[in-house]
Amino acid sequence: MKTIYMDHVATNPMHPEVLDAMIPYLREHYGNPLSMYEPGMVAREAIENARTHTADLINAKPREIIFTASGAEANNFAVKGIAYAYQNKGKHIIVSKVEHHSILNPARFLEKSGFNVTYLSVDRHGLVNPADVRKAITDETILISIIHASPEIGTIQPIAEIGAIAREKGIMFHTDAVASAGNIPVDVQSMNVDLLSLTAHQFYGPKGAAALYIKEGTRIVPLIYGGIQEGGRRAGTENVPAIVGMGKAAELAKRDLQKRMEHLKPLRDRLIAGALKIDKSMLTGHPQQRLPGHASFIVEYIEGEAMLMLLAAKGIYSASGSACSSKALKSSPVLLAIGTPVHMAQGSVVFTLGEGTTDEDINYFNETFSQVITRLREISPYAKGWEGMEDQACTAKK
Amino acid sequence: MKTIYMDHVATNPMHPEVLDAMIPYLREHYGNPLSMYEPGMVAREAIENARTHTADLINAKPREIIFTASGAEANNFAVKGIAYAYQNKGKHIIVSKVEHHSILNPARFLEKSGFNVTYLSVDRHGLVNPADVRKAITDETILISIIHASPEIGTIQPIAEIGAIAREKGIMFHTDAVASAGNIPVDVQSMNVDLLSLTAHQFYGPKGAAALYIKEGTRIVPLIYGGIQEGGRRAGTENVPAIVGMGKAAELAKRDLQKRMEHLKPLRDRLIAGALKIDKSMLTGHPQQRLPGHASFIVEYIEGEAMLMLLAAKGIYSASGSACSSKALKSSPVLLAIGTPVHMAQGSVVFTLGEGTTDEDINYFNETFSQVITRLREISPYAKGWEGMEDQACTAKK
Repeated sequence: MKTIYMDHVATNPMHPEVLDAMIPYLREHYGNPLSMYEPGMVAREAIENARTHTADLINAKPREIIFTASGAEANNFAVKGIAYAYQNKGKHIIVSKVEHHSILNPARFLEKSGFNVTYLSVDRHGLVNPADVRKAITDETILISIIHASPEIGTIQPIAEIGAIAREKGIMFHTDAVASAGNIPVDVQSMNVDLLSLTAHQFYGPKGAAALYIKEGTRIVPLIYGGIQEGGRRAGTENVPAIVGMGKAAELAKRDLQKRMEHLKPLRDRLIAGALKIDKSMLTGHPQQRLPGHASFIVEYIEGEAMLMLLAAKGIYSASGSACSSKALKSSPVLLAIGTPVHMAQGSVVFTLGEGTTDEDINYFNETFSQVITRLREISPYAKGWEGMEDQACTAKK
Repeated sequence: MKTIYMDHVATNPMHPEVLDAMIPYLREHYGNPLSMYEPGMVAREAIENARTHTADLINAKPREIIFTASGAEANNFAVKGIAYAYQNKGKHIIVSKVEHHSILNPARFLEKSGFNVTYLSVDRHGLVNPADVRKAITDETILISIIHASPEIGTIQPIAEIGAIAREKGIMFHTDAVASAGNIPVDVQSMNVDLLSLTAHQFYGPKGAAALYIKEGTRIVPLIYGGIQEGGRRAGTENVPAIVGMGKAAELAKRDLQKRMEHLKPLRDRLIAGALKIDKSMLTGHPQQRLPGHASFIVEYIEGEAMLMLLAAKGIYSASGSACSSKALKSSPVLLAIGTPVHMAQGSVVFTLGEGTTDEDINYFNETFSQVITRLREISPYAKGWEGMEDQACTAKK
């Protein structure tokens, strides 16, 4: 059976050139970058080269890039590192309700040790209103962190506008660009950000390499203490092959960004048009201001997990917007934040396209998705309405 | 020129079988382990298989293994995670003065937020006296962390004995086994540990994969919050290829442990015997209780960095015991802890052998090292004594 991978926001295959670039560092160039002899220097140069390409992708300086092992690590580092570094100035942090768990959970951890966190509401498309950010700022505010693009609903936030407010008030501003960097233009200068998280496997790089951009002159407390790697700000023997892969992926992403976006948008729009023909289906997230390969829906009277399984049986790999599909057994905070009732949030599904997605894939998808929904409604006890479904919703198992 | 890699404690090449095991996960099996469809399940099974092999290496249960990206991350996770989880019980932590910076620096960070830390002294061989651990314990003590084997002086600590004291007192006990696991027998049961850090690249696995063993039933606060990976204790998309490589490396290390040790010890002892023939050279660390491939020395009236450079010019890659060689420009706390005067600590050098080290390598080494020292003493302004060297010692640049 032909399979169609439509979960590019979960992870991506590596670009063949990325793996080719990594192979020598997986084989012969195994030196520790801290070592003073030849093999160490080879590894060190490779890392600095990757740092330059990663910086170029987001219009930063190489020395503003700190490599981490994941986007989650970069997000934790940003939130906790800025909170600890600036806590003498104040203990108030502003985030949105549509942040990733790697922002929300560190924020909750900080709340337990005396910080105050404001969780900003969003509109029905998931957008943060910059005016709400301004209103939430107090004399105690030391950090604002707003996600750039939502992996769950695709919405792209007005980061530059929020950043301008943060800068005017002299407050550190971080954006989680894990789902966006390498996929849409990301420019730390025009976005007015002080910190920005990105991860390689979201743009055809390897797993295990990510970065936090930290604007020159920004103080930060390390998350991982130890050796003098990354200027003493992130310890641990460098994952040289993965960092090299991230550099190559960043180079390719910068070169091919427009081409990739132009490839994805019409495919996405055809997929959305097809899916919206289904009775009682609705798009989640912003209709225009969204990631170019991202389409997300709620289909009423259907459970997301059932959709995923039946689609997978037809060779289409996708994700439920609800973390329920990942066994977390909770309704998605993002869907609740955009006003989705709990029982409807279970009917969420996300399709994300990539370099390899073709016109034929979309044809097959549109035909198959419609069939799958028809079939599910035939067998679903909820097809006539939601009665009773609330009890079975996975939130009940919390 | 033939080169001889004698810095296996810095990092190692991967075993060819390790890379072979990783390749399918770098190419076709790129799924996200959290995904519910086939490619996700393939990745998830690979991780669980690696978890079993990693657990087997240290006689743990698979569910007691939490994968991290580095030994430094595992150490930070252990120290901060236990401190935060048990702070209501008390705020006292015991470590030794010969811990790695990834233990010492998180301990110092905790001191700034109200924890008290006891830094235990060691004897001239770098050994912690278990009686000193017992004496340091108070009603407030919640964590003891003692390194298993020192990467700098090779000394292996009496972990089982210290662990027995910790267990008797009901105090959490962590050991940093980054330099030892996979190289000497490590058994979490007989060592009486509650937490143990290990890293793959120390036993011919990849960089970017490491683990923290957490005994079942131990509470810990995450270092990296976010998704539900690793049972909610360590977020971030798993570095599947690296974890697979760690599993394979653990499997090989368990199988070949005795053979590897029997290969290394006679080579190490010949190297030590050769180096000690040099006038005013001395072994650092314990003469017997030391890592099987580890030889470390202080050569009087010589700077470590000069030794490294001249040895590298002769094709021998080694490290200075002093972090000075890594541009930290500080005297090694470990060497100071074993009573080495500051100026002598600059004359430190560490040779660590591996699977590929041969008898001929040791012959070449013994001949070359002696020549290098003779040459350096001919040109050294300090060859007649230490006068004036104190001022030039890199500590002065702190």
